[in-house]
Amino acid sequence: MHRVVIVGGGFGGLAAAKAIRYAPVEVTVVDRRNFHLFQPLLYQVATGSLSPSEIATPLRTLVRNQKNVRVAMDEAVYLDTKNRRLVLSSETIPYDSLIVATGAQNHFFGHGEWEQSAPGLKTIEDATRIRHKILEAFEKAELERDPDARRAWLTFVLVGGGATGVELAGALAEIANDTLRDDFRSIRPEESQILLLEGADRLLQSFPEDLSKAAEQSLARLGVQVRTRVRVTAIDADGVTLSSQQRPETIASKTVIWAAGVAPSDFTGIVARATGAATDRAGRICVQSDLTVSGYPEIFVIGDAAHLEWKGAPLPGIAPVAMQQGRQAAEAIMERLRGYPAPEFRYRNKGNLAVIGRNAAVADFGRLRFHGRPAWLLWLFVHLMYLAEFRNRLIVFIRWGFSYLTFDRGARLITGAADAPASAARR
Amino acid sequence: MHRVVIVGGGFGGLAAAKAIRYAPVEVTVVDRRNFHLFQPLLYQVATGSLSPSEIATPLRTLVRNQKNVRVAMDEAVYLDTKNRRLVLSSETIPYDSLIVATGAQNHFFGHGEWEQSAPGLKTIEDATRIRHKILEAFEKAELERDPDARRAWLTFVLVGGGATGVELAGALAEIANDTLRDDFRSIRPEESQILLLEGADRLLQSFPEDLSKAAEQSLARLGVQVRTRVRVTAIDADGVTLSSQQRPETIASKTVIWAAGVAPSDFTGIVARATGAATDRAGRICVQSDLTVSGYPEIFVIGDAAHLEWKGAPLPGIAPVAMQQGRQAAEAIMERLRGYPAPEFRYRNKGNLAVIGRNAAVADFGRLRFHGRPAWLLWLFVHLMYLAEFRNRLIVFIRWGFSYLTFDRGARLITGAADAPASAARR
Repeated sequence: MHRVVIVGGGFGGLAAAKAIRYAPVEVTVVDRRNFHLFQPLLYQVATGSLSPSEIATPLRTLVRNQKNVRVAMDEAVYLDTKNRRLVLSSETIPYDSLIVATGAQNHFFGHGEWEQSAPGLKTIEDATRIRHKILEAFEKAELERDPDARRAWLTFVLVGGGATGVELAGALAEIANDTLRDDFRSIRPEESQILLLEGADRLLQSFPEDLSKAAEQSLARLGVQVRTRVRVTAIDADGVTLSSQQRPETIASKTVIWAAGVAPSDFTGIVARATGAATDRAGRICVQSDLTVSGYPEIFVIGDAAHLEWKGAPLPGIAPVAMQQGRQAAEAIMERLRGYPAPEFRYRNKGNLAVIGRNAAVADFGRLRFHGRPAWLLWLFVHLMYLAEFRNRLIVFIRWGFSYLTFDRGARLITGAADAPASAARR
Repeated sequence: MHRVVIVGGGFGGLAAAKAIRYAPVEVTVVDRRNFHLFQPLLYQVATGSLSPSEIATPLRTLVRNQKNVRVAMDEAVYLDTKNRRLVLSSETIPYDSLIVATGAQNHFFGHGEWEQSAPGLKTIEDATRIRHKILEAFEKAELERDPDARRAWLTFVLVGGGATGVELAGALAEIANDTLRDDFRSIRPEESQILLLEGADRLLQSFPEDLSKAAEQSLARLGVQVRTRVRVTAIDADGVTLSSQQRPETIASKTVIWAAGVAPSDFTGIVARATGAATDRAGRICVQSDLTVSGYPEIFVIGDAAHLEWKGAPLPGIAPVAMQQGRQAAEAIMERLRGYPAPEFRYRNKGNLAVIGRNAAVADFGRLRFHGRPAWLLWLFVHLMYLAEFRNRLIVFIRWGFSYLTFDRGARLITGAADAPASAARR
């Protein structure tokens, strides 16, 4: 029987596994983790609104009833394109079709050491580490007598003004202004400084300019200081150094969070070397219009691992792109089994949403764009609907309802280690 | 104003802080963690039924409206009884009354190295580490070709037949028999071996014999092998060695969990040295009938840190004892402020419950004792009612409802590290 191997159980890989459900194929889904993670809500774990298990579902549960799907919790370490074999840490598996859906990881532009002080937000461990750092900062400030040191504990710097940076900044402002308002006796959390740094001239560059402006205004109302056109030149345990208009400037902060860059996972590099495929500057594999690698019609690369131009620009690294590509790759394999050629991928833009906070979000549907409460309600609805399980939808709905009414956040735990490099946990 | 310092925000410390609410005192609650943990449900985190945040609530939230209470997330490192000062890692605070409520930690009877292979269950980190080990064992077994190695991955050994060991054994059996039944393709989880080892001649020694027998029968129906009168002589990454009827025996197992012993936390030793108080064999401080340390009427020791005889036996280390003693210590301080002597502590036995699994539990109320579904329903009700927040009660209720109907468990995530010593994370 035709053997399909899918590497990665994120939005793309899972969509592919589900789409191929009724085909006469044997499917193996390989993932290092035992769960599918709903990354768009990961920032809510990092800011104490949700628990990890509410946005993560075991992969085995999701494909339990697909008897032709096997899940291997393992790591792909080598690709033998000649014999069509994928080498995992504990076994080697043959494939007839391969779908590479390994997503992205944090990328520090050659400054890997920054991760020690400024975690990115890609994994559950990243999220609980950021949560640890944020909540601990208020606790340390409460115990601190020296005003300068106290100010450094109460200064939060977010590097990168994309959707993740904006979402974290909005949530942090709400924690400081509302959630923790009556919790402390020595400090006033609402006097925290929250800085959002962006290298370009505006936030949310994937949105039209008027929505960037709306987002900036919403953040300003929450007390977030947005600084554009600044470049970070150093990050350590005591803060960030940045250059803007030539003169360097240091901001003392004990909590710096990295939201400035991602790169494809290491396996993408393995695939690129094995196939000789071209990659873009970030390391994504340039795929053909049917999502395969040039010269390897049996190898599909999708989602954040792939670079594909669409209407003059590369497709963005977002869940809808990955899901549509996953379904497309499954479709292509089934068409070929029936003797037809693989169809071209056509992206359907379902719109773009980013949330800032309570009653504040931006929505871009091409000609139709709006912000404020309508966008926020739409964001809530869409994210609830796309959560993988009914139970999680219900629990997240309850948590959001309580948070809306009480300004509280129900998962404000300081657990695990704050300074362990996330990569150690990610193994 | 009279200064009360409470060390520990568990059941005892929190009950004391709440009981002293309207008194003209200044209260400081010191805890290393930022949350109150509902330990009776910790085994449900370890077995993937609940999430950490569902059984843990930030201490600051719990005392937010008590303006006379300050929370310090810090560690008590020294006690200066002469000047009535408590030294914390980051400050020194004076007290007029001190309540020591620092609870218990895992204790390996002089074999601290066993913790590396056999985690105990005392902290959130312990629970997620055990969850990691249990779930990973099934994943590793699925990938393993060698039948002996596979069997070792599917053998689970629980050391200690008290309430924690019994609860873990029951939950593990349900995971193997029901939750994971259709999840794997190479292994059959229901063929797992689950061993519960106990040194004495029966399980649940704090219960009457007929209930021990009932629990043993319930576990046997679930497929758990109960072995009493066995002594563990070694534990390492490959299994346990035990001696029963003279000959040593080795059980190959990749998942050994320690439920055999606890000892008071390190701070109890600091208090004992500072006051010269007598301690029992486990290290608990022997207190007087008003819960104070002999010669130090201003120092109260309560809960798992204290040893107090009641009707010929020491009071057990359970939440009701700690809560009653916490309220009593608060009462004593208030009485003295009014010029009256501190009253004697009188324990009111509210009964004893232990759960085995679906429809199976044991209940002991002195003359009234029962098991099976009535005891299980009572257990559910009591544990829901005592959870600290309405939100958590609602979410736990939903999770339990789903689990009951679907046999699923909603928090089956493999996160963090499995082999980090819990003590490192606990700091």
